[in-house]
Amino acid sequence: MKSLTRNYLKIGILGGGQLGWMMILEGRKYPFTFYVLDDPNTPGCRIADKCFPPEKYKEMIDEVDVVTFEFEHVLDKALEYAQEKEKLFPGINSVELKRERYKEKLYYKEHNLPTPRFLVAEDGEEALKILKEEFNGIGVLKESLGGYDGKGQYFIKGDVNKYENLKSKKVKFVVEEFVNFNYEASIIAMRDKNGNFKAYPPTFNYNEKGILVYNYGPLHDNRFEEIAKRLADSLNYVGTMGIEFFVRDGEILINEFAPRVHNTGHYTLDSAYISQFEQHIRAITGIELGSTELLTFGGMVNILGTDDVPPEVLRYGKVYWYGKPDVKKRRKMGHVNVIGKDLEEVKQKIDIIMKLIYKQGLDL
Amino acid sequence: MKSLTRNYLKIGILGGGQLGWMMILEGRKYPFTFYVLDDPNTPGCRIADKCFPPEKYKEMIDEVDVVTFEFEHVLDKALEYAQEKEKLFPGINSVELKRERYKEKLYYKEHNLPTPRFLVAEDGEEALKILKEEFNGIGVLKESLGGYDGKGQYFIKGDVNKYENLKSKKVKFVVEEFVNFNYEASIIAMRDKNGNFKAYPPTFNYNEKGILVYNYGPLHDNRFEEIAKRLADSLNYVGTMGIEFFVRDGEILINEFAPRVHNTGHYTLDSAYISQFEQHIRAITGIELGSTELLTFGGMVNILGTDDVPPEVLRYGKVYWYGKPDVKKRRKMGHVNVIGKDLEEVKQKIDIIMKLIYKQGLDL
Repeated sequence: MKSLTRNYLKIGILGGGQLGWMMILEGRKYPFTFYVLDDPNTPGCRIADKCFPPEKYKEMIDEVDVVTFEFEHVLDKALEYAQEKEKLFPGINSVELKRERYKEKLYYKEHNLPTPRFLVAEDGEEALKILKEEFNGIGVLKESLGGYDGKGQYFIKGDVNKYENLKSKKVKFVVEEFVNFNYEASIIAMRDKNGNFKAYPPTFNYNEKGILVYNYGPLHDNRFEEIAKRLADSLNYVGTMGIEFFVRDGEILINEFAPRVHNTGHYTLDSAYISQFEQHIRAITGIELGSTELLTFGGMVNILGTDDVPPEVLRYGKVYWYGKPDVKKRRKMGHVNVIGKDLEEVKQKIDIIMKLIYKQGLDL
Repeated sequence: MKSLTRNYLKIGILGGGQLGWMMILEGRKYPFTFYVLDDPNTPGCRIADKCFPPEKYKEMIDEVDVVTFEFEHVLDKALEYAQEKEKLFPGINSVELKRERYKEKLYYKEHNLPTPRFLVAEDGEEALKILKEEFNGIGVLKESLGGYDGKGQYFIKGDVNKYENLKSKKVKFVVEEFVNFNYEASIIAMRDKNGNFKAYPPTFNYNEKGILVYNYGPLHDNRFEEIAKRLADSLNYVGTMGIEFFVRDGEILINEFAPRVHNTGHYTLDSAYISQFEQHIRAITGIELGSTELLTFGGMVNILGTDDVPPEVLRYGKVYWYGKPDVKKRRKMGHVNVIGKDLEEVKQKIDIIMKLIYKQGLDL
């Protein structure tokens, strides 16, 4: 690249959710235009230079220089077409691992990446059998196909009989040990086209019913970054990724990874000089990655299933409202970024914000 | 305001330059839509929800809830119409001071705000006469009407005879003492609809031929903020403003103020938790102002009159490219924000960036 500012690339984003919305907002500082494949009333399409309905994926992909995705469960045909045209970053190999949970789990095993003990079952009946025989009836059954945000997951703690209905499910399952973790954590990492790797410091996360509620950091432990580098390198990954972990008695286990910018990296918009979104845009367009140093302690609270956020929240954090057309239970409507002089101050602000947003308690 | 996130305001911005562009980028986190009055290929219009050609100002102003401007030298009729509809923030009283330099200067005098010694001349002939008789032939002649970025200003250092051609100018002039300053500085301040006032710490500025080249800070001196508060209060100002100063032997003199977000506040996008642009959007929409604390030392370099920025610049700063349709001499094409652990580091990075962007030296 001779001149950064004569580099007039067109970037196509598959999916118009909040992750695409933030990619565009953070990518606007470069001489790029942003095309989005999704419905016109999605956050991403609302601020795109051009919005394409899903069926016009070929038209969009033909028109742009680089294709990325803000969510891995998008139109398979679009991902495949973009890959075929050699425009897709990260590549389709990362998405393939996410199409079926068992593939992702096997990949960790093959690459000697730490993950909770698991077995693969061909259907619901076998899954229940394995749970009883191999896990003493305590574990997690996960439908292998297309689950995210806690969908298709069953936490079974000895009461296997209550789940007899799963017997009739003719789909693959992952049967996993139940991890009685001390805490959950994640790391946001990125890798460019030349194989350069960087990562933000990890964060502590709090999930409820499979959805991230809040996170904060930094958490100091180099092992997360080492694992992230091995995973990213093995995939020849290009872009930003998020990896979620369980930490149990000092042992680190990968729960899952996401081949995209990640909810636990939203705090980088305010706590870091360069955000995870800008890093992703840099990586996929061939611009050198920026510093991942944090300027301050920080965190994030998700705004879930409500559009009623009292203005007082602004005294403790910075609100990002995605402008989705309607409110639904569990839907991510926005988030609040928090900064503080130490973890304690960040956690205190998160507590206050949680009470201000979820006056009646969190209902997921 | 009961809910921050159900506050679906439409904001109309007069002018589609980079200042409007950054207002929109920073305002997108709120549930607002942004309408811009300008040509469709301006930075602001390119990312607006709706763009209106200048002649349709009434239509736009009728449609929005709040009107602001990103530049004070915009269509007078639009400003007046918005004021008449009680939608204009900041109010037209601030703009009126900027229409003619002598009004601004007299305002400072009347309000006991420190400014270089000046006299008002009815035309060029009188201006030259005053310069000779009252200022010993050394001073600055400024055409009173509509000058900005150094336009219509004449720095005369004893060689009055060279400026005989100004004699024929039948316009008002301000004749001002030449200030042999130690340094230039500015402050970015804001005031909300309830009269609450805040300011960022001042910065050191470097201008050449009337155009800001770079600035950095913070500069610690409470007097700037006191002056800003008196000016903002006296105008019953609503929004962000920038005030430029000369500092001469410890004495602070207002050079001029701008009733809008300001070039010397761009560094707040990266050095502050809340930027000058977000503060402006908050002020004009009735949202409480945010903290003006800086997270780090910072600064900014303007990209003037070139679209050739080497990618190496990103190792020292963050590039904001406005995407203007064509390059012109002296035109502000973008800027580079810099952060550092102290002023020294920021200044070093600015020096490196200046050399990378202006390989042949600055040509303004």
